[in-house]
Amino acid sequence: MSKKNAFYAQSGGVTAVINASACGVIETARKHSDKIGNVYAGRNGIIGALAEDLIDTNKESAQAIAALRHTPSGGFGSCRFKLKGLEQSKREYERLIEVFKAHDIGYFFYNGGGDSADTCYKVSQLSEKMGFPVQAIHVPKTVDNDLPITDNCPGFGSVAKYIAVSTLEASYDVRSMAKTSTKVFVIEVMGRHAGWIAAAGGLVEDQGIPVVILFPEIKFNQEAFLAKCRQKVEEHGYVSVVVSEGAHWPDGKFLAEQGTRDAFGHAQLGGAAPVVANMIKEALGYKFHWAVADYLQRAARHLASKSDVEQAYALGRAAVEYALEGENSIMPTVVRKSSDPYVWEIGKAPLSEVANVEKMMPMEFITEDGFGITKACKEYLYPLIQGEDYPPYKNGLPDYVTLQNARVEKKLPAFNLD
Amino acid sequence: MSKKNAFYAQSGGVTAVINASACGVIETARKHSDKIGNVYAGRNGIIGALAEDLIDTNKESAQAIAALRHTPSGGFGSCRFKLKGLEQSKREYERLIEVFKAHDIGYFFYNGGGDSADTCYKVSQLSEKMGFPVQAIHVPKTVDNDLPITDNCPGFGSVAKYIAVSTLEASYDVRSMAKTSTKVFVIEVMGRHAGWIAAAGGLVEDQGIPVVILFPEIKFNQEAFLAKCRQKVEEHGYVSVVVSEGAHWPDGKFLAEQGTRDAFGHAQLGGAAPVVANMIKEALGYKFHWAVADYLQRAARHLASKSDVEQAYALGRAAVEYALEGENSIMPTVVRKSSDPYVWEIGKAPLSEVANVEKMMPMEFITEDGFGITKACKEYLYPLIQGEDYPPYKNGLPDYVTLQNARVEKKLPAFNLD
Repeated sequence: MSKKNAFYAQSGGVTAVINASACGVIETARKHSDKIGNVYAGRNGIIGALAEDLIDTNKESAQAIAALRHTPSGGFGSCRFKLKGLEQSKREYERLIEVFKAHDIGYFFYNGGGDSADTCYKVSQLSEKMGFPVQAIHVPKTVDNDLPITDNCPGFGSVAKYIAVSTLEASYDVRSMAKTSTKVFVIEVMGRHAGWIAAAGGLVEDQGIPVVILFPEIKFNQEAFLAKCRQKVEEHGYVSVVVSEGAHWPDGKFLAEQGTRDAFGHAQLGGAAPVVANMIKEALGYKFHWAVADYLQRAARHLASKSDVEQAYALGRAAVEYALEGENSIMPTVVRKSSDPYVWEIGKAPLSEVANVEKMMPMEFITEDGFGITKACKEYLYPLIQGEDYPPYKNGLPDYVTLQNARVEKKLPAFNLD
Repeated sequence: MSKKNAFYAQSGGVTAVINASACGVIETARKHSDKIGNVYAGRNGIIGALAEDLIDTNKESAQAIAALRHTPSGGFGSCRFKLKGLEQSKREYERLIEVFKAHDIGYFFYNGGGDSADTCYKVSQLSEKMGFPVQAIHVPKTVDNDLPITDNCPGFGSVAKYIAVSTLEASYDVRSMAKTSTKVFVIEVMGRHAGWIAAAGGLVEDQGIPVVILFPEIKFNQEAFLAKCRQKVEEHGYVSVVVSEGAHWPDGKFLAEQGTRDAFGHAQLGGAAPVVANMIKEALGYKFHWAVADYLQRAARHLASKSDVEQAYALGRAAVEYALEGENSIMPTVVRKSSDPYVWEIGKAPLSEVANVEKMMPMEFITEDGFGITKACKEYLYPLIQGEDYPPYKNGLPDYVTLQNARVEKKLPAFNLD
């Protein structure tokens, strides 16, 4: 095997542990410097490849690369940019080949979710369909937890832990206040299509917390929801509501898009949480508080799940090892061997079976009334939030790394990105 | 000194460390069981005293009391209930005396903010004005950081740490996304009257993060704000905005109360964050994300500041020790001896000088343009977020304690709480 350089890029929404995968890729490539030359990272994802805006990761110290493991976000920048099919986006694929040729790139590691798996799959076909030899391996990442075959997706476990811990803490708070003040706490969480993240809030039930969940999988039934909230408050004195940003009415309209308008009559982009909180107040009269976690949940490296960090790293490492074994067009996966004790190992899946397949939350994970999670769901979730993996701190704040991100000298004419 | 029982209660909004003060009070009282009998806690604050709904903390194991130190919220329940002056609320004060007499209570430890300091002050006068001997000591607590004389207030340091860390993490996230997607991240924080908490978000500037703060102390200037945001985005590619819930227009109207109405025309209680985010989008066209931290910030014991936890405990301990020295009508305080290295000790302040005095943020802590914090402010804040003090975890979640809260047998007829 002749020595080739590698390309690595981060794609889509970033997470608390996508840099841990980057760390796994780069550290492993460095261990095999007899077979892999430089690792070039795309600045802002695949755009960096198209624009020939490559980052020379060799310029980063071992210490800086190691620090990626405990640094949230995308250290090289990410992007929301989807390549279409080989035919429709032929110009872009030809440009990728030009850039790969110019920089002697033989390995393509793409770190992302469903859309990126599809792009990676197409790149993996360049060899066969366009005669350019490149091994493309997809490193899974998505807080949405919706990639198929793999038991779970890096990024999700840490969000799940963050939401479970935050819901627990805020529930203790509202419980303290409920006698004379707040009786309802509403937290809005990510997950436009699937309720994986919302489900994590349900884990606090095992701590005696009354919780009602609004899943995107379940059409919103206002009457049943209000009755459930009233019942919990009458029984416990308070209730916590976890609402997915994707919760919607039977007609498909999101709760968050309730036709809210500002003083000038402009449609206002609000959240689902204030809508739900105001709805409860109006119908039941309970005083409320609400929070919208948004980026805080997916960036919360300070509270990352240890199993999530370990898997993110292991999947990055496995991507390189599989490449060195000659693999192409695959995604390393997490294979669960046992939930209690939690035992997992790395497997692999062909990208042809990953691309364009969305894994939904099984309906048997949601209780019959539609507002809670089942024992099977808890058994699935608990292992994913196991363990803590704190970043180092300096002066009271996490000591996260910002890389130099030195540019590799360009060799090609500019490319016009549409 | 004859042996008397003690009464302890939690008041107002709870925090990540108010239970650490409870732990300090109870553990110290237990060490002096020759002088202090039982510690009775008020269930839901002072209401528990008026209703003779007392909790027998002696029924809790040493282990459970020790666990209060790492458990957020108010373990005995809190309340929002303000006693008026001795004349206007005579009936309530007489009831307090009856309950204190019935349960042989000679020490009154009240753990709260400004309003509670006032109540505690009034109780401290019962001895002189109503002939009942009780020593009343106020244990400071408030995330608003607005009690006078003490250098800072327990609860604030942990919120400050949470907001600084969350702003840092979300800023890393938006920085990764900014090339093709989100360029503005807005986080809304607590602090209706004072910008202490919002100021903490400004600490991320030292990590190279462009941040714009909207303080309640500064009348909102939309034009200057938008210009500042545009400048930061043009310079850095993105910007983080920290907006206090108390940020308001020159006419005093809160940004959060922008006349937003739902589809039915009802006034909608929204947050300041979505208002600010939409305003930027409309004027500058930047894609945004926003979060409202709400209870998450004050309940986040998982990320508590070590100095905050230590001070909360030390102030609880000092309250008991001062009582045993015969003190009445005081509040133990934090005295800063040095910022770097951070050195503090416990002092005391007469309640007559604490009650009804609100400490505002010094204007020299805010930069001249009104959107940032000064070096002096940072020097004040950094020590307060120093150190981590993680709770123990079990099964992926913090192992917080829920006390038994056994009721002390009632000896008096019921009291009608208005």
